[in-house]
Amino acid sequence: MKQFDFEEERIKQEILKLGAKRVLIQFPQGLKPEAPRIAKTIEKLGVLPIISADPCYGACDLATADAESLGADLIIHYGHSKLMKYERFPTIYVEARATLNVPSAVEKALPMLEKWNKIGLATTVQHLQTLDEAREILTRQGKIVLIGDTGRLSYPGQVIGCDYSNAVSIAKDVEAFLFIGGGQFHAIGVALSTSKPTVVADPYDNTAALVDKEAEKILKQRWAQIREAKEAKTFAVLVGLKPGQKRLEETLQLKEKLEKGGKIVHLFAINEITPEALMEFPSVDAFVNTACPRISIDDAARFMKPILTANEALVVVGKLSWEDLCKKGLLES
Amino acid sequence: MKQFDFEEERIKQEILKLGAKRVLIQFPQGLKPEAPRIAKTIEKLGVLPIISADPCYGACDLATADAESLGADLIIHYGHSKLMKYERFPTIYVEARATLNVPSAVEKALPMLEKWNKIGLATTVQHLQTLDEAREILTRQGKIVLIGDTGRLSYPGQVIGCDYSNAVSIAKDVEAFLFIGGGQFHAIGVALSTSKPTVVADPYDNTAALVDKEAEKILKQRWAQIREAKEAKTFAVLVGLKPGQKRLEETLQLKEKLEKGGKIVHLFAINEITPEALMEFPSVDAFVNTACPRISIDDAARFMKPILTANEALVVVGKLSWEDLCKKGLLES
Repeated sequence: MKQFDFEEERIKQEILKLGAKRVLIQFPQGLKPEAPRIAKTIEKLGVLPIISADPCYGACDLATADAESLGADLIIHYGHSKLMKYERFPTIYVEARATLNVPSAVEKALPMLEKWNKIGLATTVQHLQTLDEAREILTRQGKIVLIGDTGRLSYPGQVIGCDYSNAVSIAKDVEAFLFIGGGQFHAIGVALSTSKPTVVADPYDNTAALVDKEAEKILKQRWAQIREAKEAKTFAVLVGLKPGQKRLEETLQLKEKLEKGGKIVHLFAINEITPEALMEFPSVDAFVNTACPRISIDDAARFMKPILTANEALVVVGKLSWEDLCKKGLLES
Repeated sequence: MKQFDFEEERIKQEILKLGAKRVLIQFPQGLKPEAPRIAKTIEKLGVLPIISADPCYGACDLATADAESLGADLIIHYGHSKLMKYERFPTIYVEARATLNVPSAVEKALPMLEKWNKIGLATTVQHLQTLDEAREILTRQGKIVLIGDTGRLSYPGQVIGCDYSNAVSIAKDVEAFLFIGGGQFHAIGVALSTSKPTVVADPYDNTAALVDKEAEKILKQRWAQIREAKEAKTFAVLVGLKPGQKRLEETLQLKEKLEKGGKIVHLFAINEITPEALMEFPSVDAFVNTACPRISIDDAARFMKPILTANEALVVVGKLSWEDLCKKGLLES
């Protein structure tokens, strides 16, 4: 996996500087195959590396409780930038910047952006270093390029699965977005958050594509789930147990609002939201997920019952209109 | 689910006595459908009930960290008896005793026990109250009946998924075992731990069956996995993160022993051991599971690579013979 910079030298220096003796290493799913190699590099320093093998999809899922429980003195968290303002445990973030070239994929995106003049740029932490290059390519074509920065995330132009505020902040000033990165997940996130045409330039397979049809399909699915949930009698509001996904106050408020809307409401605490875990409760007709909106947005088809975001639950009980939610963006909290 | 005693009155009294305001309720998989009903009973006391929706297969999986994180002041743990000597969190165990009649299933087991005179009895916490009745039926047939009690578990004759010591303690004095309970899981556990013919009397579907063939099949699978792991170069030793499954010292010792045996060894920390989680590490040839032996014994076929128990790993590196492990019992620690 030579496509990423694992910063072995920096982590060795940091471990030595901190005098860590037992290190918990966390990798997101796509980078996990590299974990054993990195662990052996760390072990050569005379340090005990422990690899976290549980699923990890974001810096919201920092393994602080696990590190404490294992007597570790340091977490090395790969693949995401710092998210939580306060960490109760010493943590080093390694962003795993991609070493891929992007110009070729961006060139392929140009014909798809032809009819628009003002373009917003967005990307994940892996490709931030390519934004300048992408901007230049677009500018050479006579485009006006904007990169948003709300200060909510670590870098201008950065997006994460549940926060597209940098894109949203410039949406009114651009006609379309170019997202740089792999797959469609984040490009769809930009489209759903900004309601603007969004093109993904994928440097991994060197392709470009407009994701509007996928975003539209998801919008239709979301509305269908909301309609189904309007008929539901018994709800479970899920509170996430991962440190950056725990919104207990919001969960309690949602319970109250749904109850005022005539629903029977249970509170479920959950770490990994899976179809199997929820299928254990046949008497629940619909779920509301306050933990990670992307489980609702992207994985709905895997679940047997509607699994709404917090905002979608407000639509169910008439506290928010579907139109206002669409305007606000499906992923806005 | 009228087959179990959920002890609603007792838990109401205990909650009021303790003055709990926020209660985390944990149910094992089979009983989870009842959780919403029990939660509503608790809510009527003016207490906030939160249902733990994550998988739970034993009292080893007590949700203390979750309860702390949610600001709960009490855990109500259903379906298992107290396992850990020390709990850092106020916990009420509700054993969920079955209300089923067993004589009919025990009668059906009699022909299968015909050729043996000395019979050991074992059961799970759900059916402990039926042991006297079962003993009487067997005694009337002229059998000598033994019930083991090592003091390791809460009750004489009780078995749990990873502890058959009560059965093992009387194995040398009996010719066969009668296990009372649902499914084959625990009966197979008795057979694998005692190497004695074992009959299950299942009061749920009112049947009886000898489980020796199933136990033999598992023994063959275990030996095949050990042989495959002998050829493996790279191992990951899994340390469980659930409070009653965390054996970090044992994991560290195993790592050393496997390394002395010429293996490359990684340490993985994991909460839920699933095939999907382990598949993320293609460079690992074999896994050693110190968390829950039943994941190795019963679910091996779901995993792509060998997943050994701690004792089986010792067989791989020649620190224990297969014959001695079989004598000791596959589930003995």
